[in-house]
Amino acid sequence: MVNLPSQTIWYLEYITPELIQAEGVRRVIYDGQTKYQKVQVIETVPFGRSLVLDGKTQSSESDEWAYHEGLVQPVMVAAAATKRVFIAGGGEGATAREILRHTSVSEVVMVDLDSEVVALCREHLPNHHRGSFDDPRLTLLHEDALVYLEQHPEPFDVIIIDIPDPLEGGPAYLLYTTEFYQLVASRLAPGGMMVTQAGPAGPTNVTEVFTAIHKTMAGVFKNTAPYRVYVPSFGTMWGFIVGGVDGAPELAASDPAEIDARIGARLSSELAYYDGIAHQGLFGLPKYIRKALADEQRVITNANPIFAV
Amino acid sequence: MVNLPSQTIWYLEYITPELIQAEGVRRVIYDGQTKYQKVQVIETVPFGRSLVLDGKTQSSESDEWAYHEGLVQPVMVAAAATKRVFIAGGGEGATAREILRHTSVSEVVMVDLDSEVVALCREHLPNHHRGSFDDPRLTLLHEDALVYLEQHPEPFDVIIIDIPDPLEGGPAYLLYTTEFYQLVASRLAPGGMMVTQAGPAGPTNVTEVFTAIHKTMAGVFKNTAPYRVYVPSFGTMWGFIVGGVDGAPELAASDPAEIDARIGARLSSELAYYDGIAHQGLFGLPKYIRKALADEQRVITNANPIFAV
Amino acid sequence: MVNLPSQTIWYLEYITPELIQAEGVRRVIYDGQTKYQKVQVIETVPFGRSLVLDGKTQSSESDEWAYHEGLVQPVMVAAAATKRVFIAGGGEGATAREILRHTSVSEVVMVDLDSEVVALCREHLPNHHRGSFDDPRLTLLHEDALVYLEQHPEPFDVIIIDIPDPLEGGPAYLLYTTEFYQLVASRLAPGGMMVTQAGPAGPTNVTEVFTAIHKTMAGVFKNTAPYRVYVPSFGTMWGFIVGGVDGAPELAASDPAEIDARIGARLSSELAYYDGIAHQGLFGLPKYIRKALADEQRVITNANPIFAV
Amino acid sequence: MVNLPSQTIWYLEYITPELIQAEGVRRVIYDGQTKYQKVQVIETVPFGRSLVLDGKTQSSESDEWAYHEGLVQPVMVAAAATKRVFIAGGGEGATAREILRHTSVSEVVMVDLDSEVVALCREHLPNHHRGSFDDPRLTLLHEDALVYLEQHPEPFDVIIIDIPDPLEGGPAYLLYTTEFYQLVASRLAPGGMMVTQAGPAGPTNVTEVFTAIHKTMAGVFKNTAPYRVYVPSFGTMWGFIVGGVDGAPELAASDPAEIDARIGARLSSELAYYDGIAHQGLFGLPKYIRKALADEQRVITNANPIFAV
Repeated sequence: MVNLPSQTIWYLEYITPELIQAEGVRRVIYDGQTKYQKVQVIETVPFGRSLVLDGKTQSSESDEWAYHEGLVQPVMVAAAATKRVFIAGGGEGATAREILRHTSVSEVVMVDLDSEVVALCREHLPNHHRGSFDDPRLTLLHEDALVYLEQHPEPFDVIIIDIPDPLEGGPAYLLYTTEFYQLVASRLAPGGMMVTQAGPAGPTNVTEVFTAIHKTMAGVFKNTAPYRVYVPSFGTMWGFIVGGVDGAPELAASDPAEIDARIGARLSSELAYYDGIAHQGLFGLPKYIRKALADEQRVITNANPIFAV
Repeated sequence: MVNLPSQTIWYLEYITPELIQAEGVRRVIYDGQTKYQKVQVIETVPFGRSLVLDGKTQSSESDEWAYHEGLVQPVMVAAAATKRVFIAGGGEGATAREILRHTSVSEVVMVDLDSEVVALCREHLPNHHRGSFDDPRLTLLHEDALVYLEQHPEPFDVIIIDIPDPLEGGPAYLLYTTEFYQLVASRLAPGGMMVTQAGPAGPTNVTEVFTAIHKTMAGVFKNTAPYRVYVPSFGTMWGFIVGGVDGAPELAASDPAEIDARIGARLSSELAYYDGIAHQGLFGLPKYIRKALADEQRVITNANPIFAV
Repeated sequence: MVNLPSQTIWYLEYITPELIQAEGVRRVIYDGQTKYQKVQVIETVPFGRSLVLDGKTQSSESDEWAYHEGLVQPVMVAAAATKRVFIAGGGEGATAREILRHTSVSEVVMVDLDSEVVALCREHLPNHHRGSFDDPRLTLLHEDALVYLEQHPEPFDVIIIDIPDPLEGGPAYLLYTTEFYQLVASRLAPGGMMVTQAGPAGPTNVTEVFTAIHKTMAGVFKNTAPYRVYVPSFGTMWGFIVGGVDGAPELAASDPAEIDARIGARLSSELAYYDGIAHQGLFGLPKYIRKALADEQRVITNANPIFAV
Repeated sequence: MVNLPSQTIWYLEYITPELIQAEGVRRVIYDGQTKYQKVQVIETVPFGRSLVLDGKTQSSESDEWAYHEGLVQPVMVAAAATKRVFIAGGGEGATAREILRHTSVSEVVMVDLDSEVVALCREHLPNHHRGSFDDPRLTLLHEDALVYLEQHPEPFDVIIIDIPDPLEGGPAYLLYTTEFYQLVASRLAPGGMMVTQAGPAGPTNVTEVFTAIHKTMAGVFKNTAPYRVYVPSFGTMWGFIVGGVDGAPELAASDPAEIDARIGARLSSELAYYDGIAHQGLFGLPKYIRKALADEQRVITNANPIFAV
């Protein structure tokens, strides 16, 4: 019927134990283990070059722009001030890239625990970072983002959490708790905003971690705004949640024309995904997600963490 | 790491030859061949009972409501009149179900070529049709929808095209052409609207057929409105396109409060996906899709058909 | 490169967790659960109709004759007397079929625990049993073979153990122990012989259970003869072990011409696999298997059972 | 039930389009294309390090000894003289290794077309060659083995053909024809012997190429001896065929004790697979293979080549 691919090597993304996305592999560029996690850099036929941590795709060449614009631009465009920005994680350099498009940004502090992962991304994922690691406004540190924030009280205008899912045994789960969000809130300037990647958000998996992260953030921040973007290489819709302290704008209520005007005024280059109309698509959640958010009772704490599948 | 499923039988959805969604199978309920196509009714662990035609999932228990509300409700809620409704295809009975929620509907004519498929759905997919086949307002016919429309000039208020993708060798490709859309337009009452399923609409596949179907419809209808919904069992975002004749409302511009008011007034039961806010999500297309739509030049005709992968 | 099969449903035989034989499925004929085990009757493209118990292929149309001749004929041809024969298991009816080819046989007692499996085989695997269930010499009982042998002291000339692997939690593991082999030996007439299927016997898995079963049998029987046959649908070489009481012939030393003469004299129909030359192939074990047999120290008892992967 | 492997990368060996052996991959060591063929060196969980050419496993660490002893030792032990030996192909260095165990060997000429493959094997498959490339008795050349034999009339005592299957479009198919075997026969000393790998030889695939190669060789050589060995990483039984010119011994008739005596006298190290008893297993073909050999009518010529699946 169709032609079998010449690829004999396949990458399997286990979305659940009984739902697997199989991708023909063009090349396994790196396959190893760092101090913190298993790392693979692979090039698949459907998605190009991908970073895979602990068996989960973090981002792929073919759709990372949907993920990274989706993560970064709504808050960066909405925020009143965007001079000092903090990134927790963000190893591919693409989150930094999106922030650095904003001419208003004067300093980005990026704290990614795993220097080996960052070095691999810098070498093997040029279409992800596109030179962002060389921008003089970027300060790159390799330590625990939580510890860094504890030790550095200077406020940021925007904080962006771009880390792996809260996998059991992985390094990330303590960055999805009430305690962590309280720390983040305390490090935001007045009117400041944060956003976190927040796990899968499709009909079959939205309650896995997304709704619980939202419930947890809603207990800490003045206002929150959950939204999602479709990222094919993840094999599912992907969720994000914005948290704003006193004085922060409400994202869901943004005016499309105002968004377009700000993008025109603030950014140094063209976006591929986000603008005023796309904003309405991101935040116009279907009823079932809004119901799941409303029904959620779980609050994540250090003592009661939550783990993704 | 995770537990291997007890399932030894797997269903493979070939999204492309090198991107495969593998689903653990709980039960193969039916596996056969009708006069027109290969038919499978399977029950998978991640998605429940699914109808598969010619190796492509048509809809699954776990997310068919997203697909079918997405297909039906935007036009049915927007249309000024919804008395007489036509369905091309719709074998599972779920499209009829969504239409029949509207108390304003007095007659639904459903024309599905393949009586065997419809009988299989009626028997094996009760959670899809939920009794819609027994509604006295439904007239079910098994013939070619194109021929039916040619031979029956009486106008419909709404026409819904719920057929398989235009697969090469399959029965459906002639229902995605200029000639067919002209026929459909001629069978709509003044101010009438149609909607068609329109293939995948994700970052990697939006130009496969979606943009070309839109370009083709835009040459026939007074106004068109492309949108998309996420359907996990399809392994991708799914596209729909509305076409309206003179006097039809513009869907993208709908007011959320007005949508909610109409739903409250017109429907006999609660929806799971669609309302005013969800509407904004469906029609708030990202830039890359709007750009792909604007760039498209292909017009599909009987002489120059288009085929999905 | 090659054409992708039209099959979208695949059967996975987990040889080990990281070695899987995937077979395109033409039809899932039965998929259910009996009182004792999970049962599937499937028809695969490479192997035809197969019986699968607890996720392990028991035999397939395309190569069951290699398995069943391999199990039955060496002992049946070598045995001095073959009047009364006992089968433990043998649900497909193919072991009985091979025995009943011998005109010398006057009575076959087949005791298979699971009447549902036998009924499914009788209905769906006609090319396996080829009418053997209708032979008046066959007595078919559904009870525990071990209990039957305990309660029936009348001796058999040949006893054939054709049961599933000793899977943990399955019904079969107590039929691979010193205690069971002592019972079997006590139910053999003087000069009588038994044979058991004995698990995989390839370079990577011969010590899984094969060598331990042999060591256990060697502690009970006067002489033993391990051998193996290649069964593609099992994804590996398959082992058998003969045990003989006082007066039984030594199989490994059989003369090819004598085997051919006996086959000509005793059998009512032509064999596909076995004859004098094939006998040398079956028993001419490579050095590594003979070394593994010699090195084995495990003796299986009811208190210390052994389980296949 | 069982644990899912931590491997997310799998190697698929397409035995037929609808029979696939899937192997968890520990590491992709090399994945590239030479002037002649696609080459992969991978390390799989079930089979260790493997050489894969054009998507077909050539040999794997875990069972290459069965393949290479099976290919080399029967002729080398049977041949009256083994002073000068020729290898066509043999890139892994393991065929040379087996030959060089014989203290009687003074010169091995190995002609493998693809110097890149040989260099990759030398670097990445140390457990295959075990230093054979450094033996001063080995002359390694990179050219077409057929052309070499045409241009060098000096006779060899033994010629061993260890090349890929006759894949369409691959470099090997002209080394399976009457014309090639006539050339080989003309380059053998009186009483000399050759052996070739001859494709799969299981119940479902023995007539793919094995029987036709045998028929072709039987038209050229004074005597021929087909046999087979089980190689798990190939997912099937594997065939070999010996051809002897006038004065060559008949292998199928060899006496086990004589084989053991010769091994003891001639070899410098212990074998893992082959000895007198194993010899009987290799050559004791089941009836169905002997029948398929007898029924075969195809003779392969340059004008009428044959291709493996």
